[in-house]
Amino acid sequence: MSDRPLEVLVPDDLGVEVLGATPGLQPVRYRPGHPWPADHTDVTAVVVGHEDAAAVGARLAELPRLRLVQTLNAGYEQWLPLLPAGVTLSNGRGAHGGSTAEWVVAALLAIYRDLADFRADQQAGQWRPRFTETLIGKRVIVLGAGDLGENLAARLAPFETEVTLVGRTARPGVVTADDLPALLPTADAVVSVLPASASTYRIIDAAFLAQLRDGAVVVNAGRGGAVDTDALLAELRAGRLRAALDVTDPEPLPAGHPLWSAPGLLLTPHVAGSTAGSEQRAWAVAARQLTEYAAGAAPSNVVVSGQATPR
Amino acid sequence: MSDRPLEVLVPDDLGVEVLGATPGLQPVRYRPGHPWPADHTDVTAVVVGHEDAAAVGARLAELPRLRLVQTLNAGYEQWLPLLPAGVTLSNGRGAHGGSTAEWVVAALLAIYRDLADFRADQQAGQWRPRFTETLIGKRVIVLGAGDLGENLAARLAPFETEVTLVGRTARPGVVTADDLPALLPTADAVVSVLPASASTYRIIDAAFLAQLRDGAVVVNAGRGGAVDTDALLAELRAGRLRAALDVTDPEPLPAGHPLWSAPGLLLTPHVAGSTAGSEQRAWAVAARQLTEYAAGAAPSNVVVSGQATPR
Repeated sequence: MSDRPLEVLVPDDLGVEVLGATPGLQPVRYRPGHPWPADHTDVTAVVVGHEDAAAVGARLAELPRLRLVQTLNAGYEQWLPLLPAGVTLSNGRGAHGGSTAEWVVAALLAIYRDLADFRADQQAGQWRPRFTETLIGKRVIVLGAGDLGENLAARLAPFETEVTLVGRTARPGVVTADDLPALLPTADAVVSVLPASASTYRIIDAAFLAQLRDGAVVVNAGRGGAVDTDALLAELRAGRLRAALDVTDPEPLPAGHPLWSAPGLLLTPHVAGSTAGSEQRAWAVAARQLTEYAAGAAPSNVVVSGQATPR
Repeated sequence: MSDRPLEVLVPDDLGVEVLGATPGLQPVRYRPGHPWPADHTDVTAVVVGHEDAAAVGARLAELPRLRLVQTLNAGYEQWLPLLPAGVTLSNGRGAHGGSTAEWVVAALLAIYRDLADFRADQQAGQWRPRFTETLIGKRVIVLGAGDLGENLAARLAPFETEVTLVGRTARPGVVTADDLPALLPTADAVVSVLPASASTYRIIDAAFLAQLRDGAVVVNAGRGGAVDTDALLAELRAGRLRAALDVTDPEPLPAGHPLWSAPGLLLTPHVAGSTAGSEQRAWAVAARQLTEYAAGAAPSNVVVSGQATPR
């Protein structure tokens, strides 16, 4: 551990502002897609933005003393093939879970409380009261038991729902995929907040969907690849299931794709985590991780552990 | 207190079913707007539906031994002028708070997460990601600190909001209307869950609205009369405030009323409490109240206390 502030390469002005105001950190601005700033290639830490893997990844090897790559997002899968040997990868977990969990509740409530149809009535000037569904009493299965799944469970709890988290390892309040055959036929809604990985690719396929009861709602706020789009489309077109998707496969959804006009679908363009203040929240998380690293500890959000001794 | 089951007049078949399955209660079906069933005018308890004040109110005096009128709704103001002297009035508090509080959260999330605009993009087949607002960090003032206000506060809490309840009497977590001048200029949203009464009539008037900052959201899930419709319309048309109304004044909102086309308004036709299972929940509350009464106690939901000794 050194007494000098830790020099950190950062990709935007907000990062310069937030890290510059954090004791022990010394941000240096770089421009993704351009050479690293001269005289600063001896840094040990760099912060990377979600969209910058192509522009920045290949240049990581040009930082000979690099020890830590800190992402601003929770998703980090695109950095795995780009990470130089021995370098630690730490992610933005904790910054976006609240916003994304909020979108899931918003989507479920919009569906159950029939807001789209009432909006159409409003636009037509028609007062047509009728009973709707409610979250009360609903059984919700959440695929993904990390920060995001826990944020979602906390938000759903006071709505008198019954929430089950499905994670990689069973623990109190969390079951595993082995329990899905028993759970799926009883579920009112299944929510994926899964990251992209080989093991989650198209986990929600035709066989999975077939186990859900009529009228069940499929929600994807994780990564588009977790859902087999054609299989879901078939269920939507049959009118048997409903869905809310913030992420799609392919993504962005191309013009003319049949999902655009699928019945029973609420679709938003990957905005679940994109709320006012989310960049500030991401930089606040990054500042905490870098402060831990500057103090000689491993950042608490480490997802790939590099060398044993940081800095 | 008697050993015989308590005979109760009920206005619908679900009531016959629920009370018939409740030990100590003996439901007898009546038809609102028609004479009481012969041989049963000596009952001491009658359950009344929300819409039946005109059809049933005048006939209450034809039940000479009547001691208790139990409503199925939380709102009871229409029964006050109809209640015979000495008769206790108990309401349906606890049955609808969850559903109505859920509607408030659904409406706030739909507004902050821009669901109507994303829906329009979906219908146009356009992938247009953009940042939205979020409930995170919002300051929400709730006018009404009863069952409904508490249900709402519980549902908002995990969304990282700052909720202040405004009630008739100050207590921990509840302030009074005296604090509004200090609170309103700091509020992001003001939600009324107030019942109809002389003291709440048009409490949200032009002077009240003028204290709110630009972009604040006014929500009414109580009774329409709490909001001065013309004053709100002026703020909506100016684009200065936004609103979500489940209740209106006048109500039902007539065809052609300017509220139908007001900008920045989410409008639903008094359905916040009308969700699947709400009739079952209302009868479950009524059954509890009548069981307490049958046991010789005052029902816990008494809103007008009649004679000291029930039954």
